Amino acid sequence: MSFPQAIILTIGDELLLGETLDTNSAWIATKLHETGFKVLRRISVGDDRQAILQALQEESARTDLLIMTGGLGPTSDDMTKTVLCDFFHTRLVLHEPTLQHITSWLQQRGTPLLERNRAQALVPEGCTVLPNPRGTAPGLWFENMQHTWIALPGVPHEMKGLMEEEVLPRLKQKWPALQAIQHRYVLMYGQGESQVAERLVGFEASLPKNIRLAYLPGNGLLKLRLSTVDGLALQLLEDYHQQLITLLSDIVVGTENLPYELLIAQKLLAKKATLALAESCTGGYLAHLFTSHPGSSAYFTGSLVCYNPEVKIQWLNVPAEWIQQPGVVSEPVARAMAESIREKLHTDYALAITGWLGPDGGTPEAPVGTVWIAASHQSQTLTRRHQLRGDRQRNLILSATHALHLLDELIRQTS
Amino acid sequence: MSFPQAIILTIGDELLLGETLDTNSAWIATKLHETGFKVLRRISVGDDRQAILQALQEESARTDLLIMTGGLGPTSDDMTKTVLCDFFHTRLVLHEPTLQHITSWLQQRGTPLLERNRAQALVPEGCTVLPNPRGTAPGLWFENMQHTWIALPGVPHEMKGLMEEEVLPRLKQKWPALQAIQHRYVLMYGQGESQVAERLVGFEASLPKNIRLAYLPGNGLLKLRLSTVDGLALQLLEDYHQQLITLLSDIVVGTENLPYELLIAQKLLAKKATLALAESCTGGYLAHLFTSHPGSSAYFTGSLVCYNPEVKIQWLNVPAEWIQQPGVVSEPVARAMAESIREKLHTDYALAITGWLGPDGGTPEAPVGTVWIAASHQSQTLTRRHQLRGDRQRNLILSATHALHLLDELIRQTS
Repeated sequence: MSFPQAIILTIGDELLLGETLDTNSAWIATKLHETGFKVLRRISVGDDRQAILQALQEESARTDLLIMTGGLGPTSDDMTKTVLCDFFHTRLVLHEPTLQHITSWLQQRGTPLLERNRAQALVPEGCTVLPNPRGTAPGLWFENMQHTWIALPGVPHEMKGLMEEEVLPRLKQKWPALQAIQHRYVLMYGQGESQVAERLVGFEASLPKNIRLAYLPGNGLLKLRLSTVDGLALQLLEDYHQQLITLLSDIVVGTENLPYELLIAQKLLAKKATLALAESCTGGYLAHLFTSHPGSSAYFTGSLVCYNPEVKIQWLNVPAEWIQQPGVVSEPVARAMAESIREKLHTDYALAITGWLGPDGGTPEAPVGTVWIAASHQSQTLTRRHQLRGDRQRNLILSATHALHLLDELIRQTS
Repeated sequence: MSFPQAIILTIGDELLLGETLDTNSAWIATKLHETGFKVLRRISVGDDRQAILQALQEESARTDLLIMTGGLGPTSDDMTKTVLCDFFHTRLVLHEPTLQHITSWLQQRGTPLLERNRAQALVPEGCTVLPNPRGTAPGLWFENMQHTWIALPGVPHEMKGLMEEEVLPRLKQKWPALQAIQHRYVLMYGQGESQVAERLVGFEASLPKNIRLAYLPGNGLLKLRLSTVDGLALQLLEDYHQQLITLLSDIVVGTENLPYELLIAQKLLAKKATLALAESCTGGYLAHLFTSHPGSSAYFTGSLVCYNPEVKIQWLNVPAEWIQQPGVVSEPVARAMAESIREKLHTDYALAITGWLGPDGGTPEAPVGTVWIAASHQSQTLTRRHQLRGDRQRNLILSATHALHLLDELIRQTS
């Protein structure tokens, strides 16, 4: 079977200046992919009439579906609608229901209706208007026999609402035979691409043409993805996934496409166990990882971000003299942090981390990049040292991965 | 003067599947922009020979500089080098210094040199090899009279190292007259684009052709950016920036292009004041915001992520009966959290937050989306309620912005 093709075009100077991460196009790509489209390419252009028009013309020729975001706001740098009029040789007309929506939307917020808000109810003649209950700019849907074009506002939660409630249902209606590309995943910790690839030479050679293997390294983890675009190869995909898990059983930490912290959360929930953290160098990042997912309150009790050494002394029973010797970044301090927070918050498990992420800090015994991690359970406490070589941001992310892995190890040992 | 133009091409299926955020192209865009290039567009294509070659051909025609990342790794889905050979009608040859680097790099890590590692020392004949001390794949530089093409590995910290140490110095050498586009910023809280634009109608009309104004809303904040591409208009840019600050003085919270938490950090540092947090619904995110920047230990003491109500009762003097009435998400609880953490961690300021971010939770008095924030100083405690309407992720980010603003307000009132 053949997959309809899609291209995502995001519009805005801020994307070319690097000020704004293009999270919209990644999110849209995921949704289109799940729905059964093949995303051919993603393009970003600036708030520039000529650049937008040119991208529209060139990309329309190579795809069935073009989704664009941005440039629908009420200010002078928003020009997507007039470019669309040029492209479709049409003109702007007032869309009454949108004007009513904008009027009541602003009324509820006690803001006056300005001419520029009124202008947001102008839409290119002939398009289908997709109502946007989360803002004032509606989505716009254009189609002819060959192509579909969709323009959405660039504000992420407005765009997402429109995609979920309007765009995806309509796409499924237009392409009733859509079938998503299927993937299976394997997650590993602390493995280089080359070494894993070497172990998989025979496996890769045995893969049929309709199943593809990809290596996705990142954040101290290596993810492998098996994919098929062939709806009939699903059982084959399952078989190869099982083979992969067996082949790499000594290094696999997960077999689903989930963030590592969620894989650990599943294990904690299965044990009805609770978790507390004591974070120095990660400064709340580990707690944020766990709590960014709904349902975390079922196992996550709390975290003490003990950034200042005084907090470690006062709240975590770290003897004051340890701050100098063996040092605030040391095995005994990490161990005391983990054991104290576990006891004080009455949890089954605790994870603690202390380190120098850079650029400042460090001592002769524990130079910048040194991280001590401790994972504690009433039966035992594991500790581990890592020496990181990245900048602050990279060291933060890597320490979090190392910490998650030590906790994972402890959970496995205590089952 | 005219600015040399650049296009950024990122390569990898993971970018089209939405699995990986394209942080590389945003980072490169920022650097190119700072250096004086005009970034025309950003494109992402998959691990597909034909798609990469086509993008190379089409984009080369419209730009002076093309920087691409990805597809230089050691596994079978990495095909950038062979596509470059096709594009430049050349072949792969062994680069001895790279082979030596790879050999010693793997030796240091106790990993054997595999054929696929050796293959990473093969480079298209005629290119300049940019050494990569952070990994095994070198950068590749191609040029002719009109164009420059640069291929970099997709691993972010390797790419960044190569950009800083090799690419940017060479670009400055090749284009000695480079002059960066200049920007000035104004940051506002809780303002709609339309309302601000309305106040700036006269200002916008008065702007000369060589100064441009952009509206960048996001995360509950609105940023305005004034730019000029004209090196001689710098004083004019300063003048308009001052005008803008004066025009909007009642709503401006910052006049530099810095994250809100850093603007607040500057104020705390100027007062030599310290800060503690008690976070319930934000689950460590606020602490992470502050501690993600170097130097935060000078003012940031710590945070208690009191996710479970028991932690609020035991550690923050919240009376147990308050959890039910007035409720864990209420003004008295937020106030007690802020005042207790400030006293217990002996800081000048404290910020506390409790809320229901969704999808679970909520009570009749405090439905999902309710957030109570308290900011405390020994002289007074401010509290504020917000009712948010987004999903969990958006509510998290908005609560953080609201919390930062309440702290900002308290700092201003206590100076």
